[in-house]
Amino acid sequence: MQIINNPNKSDWSQVLKRPTQTVGDIEETVIQIFEDVRKNGDAAIKTYTSKFDGISLDSHIVTSEEIQKAMNAVPEKLQQAIKTAKHNIEAFHTAQKTDRIEVETTQGVQCWQEKRAIQKVGLYIPGGTAPLFSTVLMLVVPAQIAGCKEIVLCSPPNKQGALAAEIVFAAHLCGVTKIIKVGGIQAIAGLTFGTETIPQVYKIFGPGNQFVTVAKQLATKYGVAIDMPAGPSELLVVADEAANASYIASDLLSQAEHGVDSQVILVSTSKTLIDKVSEEVEKQLEVLPRKAIAEKSIGNSKLIYVENDTLALELINEYGPEHFIICSQNEDFYVDHIENAGSVFIGDYTPESAGDYASGTNHTLPTNGFSKAYSGVNLDSFSKSMTFQKISKEGILNIGETIELMAEAEGLQAHKNAVSIRLKDLK
Amino acid sequence: MQIINNPNKSDWSQVLKRPTQTVGDIEETVIQIFEDVRKNGDAAIKTYTSKFDGISLDSHIVTSEEIQKAMNAVPEKLQQAIKTAKHNIEAFHTAQKTDRIEVETTQGVQCWQEKRAIQKVGLYIPGGTAPLFSTVLMLVVPAQIAGCKEIVLCSPPNKQGALAAEIVFAAHLCGVTKIIKVGGIQAIAGLTFGTETIPQVYKIFGPGNQFVTVAKQLATKYGVAIDMPAGPSELLVVADEAANASYIASDLLSQAEHGVDSQVILVSTSKTLIDKVSEEVEKQLEVLPRKAIAEKSIGNSKLIYVENDTLALELINEYGPEHFIICSQNEDFYVDHIENAGSVFIGDYTPESAGDYASGTNHTLPTNGFSKAYSGVNLDSFSKSMTFQKISKEGILNIGETIELMAEAEGLQAHKNAVSIRLKDLK
Repeated sequence: MQIINNPNKSDWSQVLKRPTQTVGDIEETVIQIFEDVRKNGDAAIKTYTSKFDGISLDSHIVTSEEIQKAMNAVPEKLQQAIKTAKHNIEAFHTAQKTDRIEVETTQGVQCWQEKRAIQKVGLYIPGGTAPLFSTVLMLVVPAQIAGCKEIVLCSPPNKQGALAAEIVFAAHLCGVTKIIKVGGIQAIAGLTFGTETIPQVYKIFGPGNQFVTVAKQLATKYGVAIDMPAGPSELLVVADEAANASYIASDLLSQAEHGVDSQVILVSTSKTLIDKVSEEVEKQLEVLPRKAIAEKSIGNSKLIYVENDTLALELINEYGPEHFIICSQNEDFYVDHIENAGSVFIGDYTPESAGDYASGTNHTLPTNGFSKAYSGVNLDSFSKSMTFQKISKEGILNIGETIELMAEAEGLQAHKNAVSIRLKDLK
Repeated sequence: MQIINNPNKSDWSQVLKRPTQTVGDIEETVIQIFEDVRKNGDAAIKTYTSKFDGISLDSHIVTSEEIQKAMNAVPEKLQQAIKTAKHNIEAFHTAQKTDRIEVETTQGVQCWQEKRAIQKVGLYIPGGTAPLFSTVLMLVVPAQIAGCKEIVLCSPPNKQGALAAEIVFAAHLCGVTKIIKVGGIQAIAGLTFGTETIPQVYKIFGPGNQFVTVAKQLATKYGVAIDMPAGPSELLVVADEAANASYIASDLLSQAEHGVDSQVILVSTSKTLIDKVSEEVEKQLEVLPRKAIAEKSIGNSKLIYVENDTLALELINEYGPEHFIICSQNEDFYVDHIENAGSVFIGDYTPESAGDYASGTNHTLPTNGFSKAYSGVNLDSFSKSMTFQKISKEGILNIGETIELMAEAEGLQAHKNAVSIRLKDLK
């Protein structure tokens, strides 16, 4: 791991630079598949599933028999664990419900704001050897609480034409409307345009490889919203001399095993701690099954020594980490002043994996510095806020002239007329 | 105006089709200007301002002398009107503040959600003959309430190198940090990359022509968030036989005068009302200063007769109007069941122009059917929600095994280790 001592502010942007991704040359493939799915619907879906997933399917819908089989295939202890996690995620996201906000801004002018569910949402769950059923919980639970009517889940089939039992189990447990065996660009294209099998949706959520990422970006050009732009996962830990080096090393490695482009940073006011963590990382790395991956991303990662907490905080806010762990005696200082982070983990007994699975917070978070402007997925991600207003005769008499003056000054006479015509009747 | 009787559901998508925009050929110009601004900063800004706005400026910053001049130039009555509108917008957006949400999801597992302001925001206000100072209020007021530290406003200079006094007045009144005389693509590029004069921001808000729209889309590729995708403004009115035809005509026209691509729709369960509104529109149109514009967009607009409220509602939810006026004896039915709309105006005395200027609701709203997934601008648009968690020894003992089981099933051993290493110390 690279140790950096007291970097100059002018070098921060270089020090904090994220591994870059180039996606330019994927775009043409994505556009071409989108066009094909738009024109040919399910026929195109079948072709690409056969081509990319190596399996030819008569139907892409997960049947009730398949669901039943999956419900039996998941071991009892894991079923219980998934239910415990679901309970916590439900508790935290249910608490995020907001009441209608109502204000009489002027006598007779009643304004209110209400949140209403996005009616149709599409959730993408990647395939691969490790089935990411935890992401199913993170997306379906808030969609249900928000009241989305149609919750469509897409995930690529394996070579046997099936989804991992854990994914089907979690999806069914949480109440997905339709589970569809389709992955990659073709899944996102299907959710964007709709096909005979795949419903068209208004917003698409979920992680994916760079093909899925570019496909989601393209979907927005067709008016479909997405949860947030994606990037490699990342973790920043701030720690002082009192922190536990082996705990921190285990957290850094849990992030590093995600992928070779994961980024892991330790910022510390203690050189001793930096040395200890570095040693511990080497030690713990040796026994990891995903050592090859973790080793590569640890290679890109940084241990940064800074002189004091104020400087550390400034540097962290400039970086805007997706996950931010605080192991410092000054934890309140960081909690109170962190401006840019996706999710914050406080103290020795709050590993990032708690939030990844079961504490109740959402694990779909802004990477790549997007925490400066984007929220992680939360209950509001599945609804939109609408405003309402009702003005009485008294109300329009009270604010009518204000509107007339402003509309006239903006040169919009018909806007003024809409008020004048009413005032004339009332005066 | 085109009258459509009882359209078949299968024809709805055709009937409700919005005027299309093609922006493909603009993209290359936008990319080129972005590259130039990124490389050459203020020098590029000056070049494009001279080229597109026809004025060569030594400095693009609005000085305190210019602000003073603007404060004196706006007539007293208009100043008062702007202050009244500001008061109402402030009242409604202040009420949208939310408290921190805290839940102990499991004994010893404390999770909370807090909203923190986006630190740096850029607001774009178009120029042209009619100065849209109302949009200044709609964007700066919530940015201030949210607590954004740096609020940068960009607007194109006129041929004399100045901004409209009303824009400078409103910006200063509401507390903009920096007012910059720069418009179009170059303004958005400047806010995206930062120049010597223009600060780099995290999120860009505000309306604009198709060049600005494409530039905002491109900004998202560089990691800058935007308020929402843009499209021509639109209004849908639902009304029954008891509604006031001349009020409705005045509302339709106030929307139609925005631009030739504005869309205006009346849905009614009364053929008599449709005829009356059609006549009234012709009559009122004659005396409008912006008749030429309104006439064209009225030409594209539709009066749709449907047999009952249920069908009307279904059609309106399929369209998802930006502005939705309800003049119906069944107003509660529509208020309760509207799923997709930006802002809703209820009753005879609630013209759309009330919300455009002074009722207190925001007028920056999702067009083009985006109300199916996007909120209009509101207080939350200027902050992001962050989650925090703090787990005690007891807490990790309570949920540790759940995390271990799930991490193992996902094949992520280092995630499991981060918990196991802590549990080992505690057991």
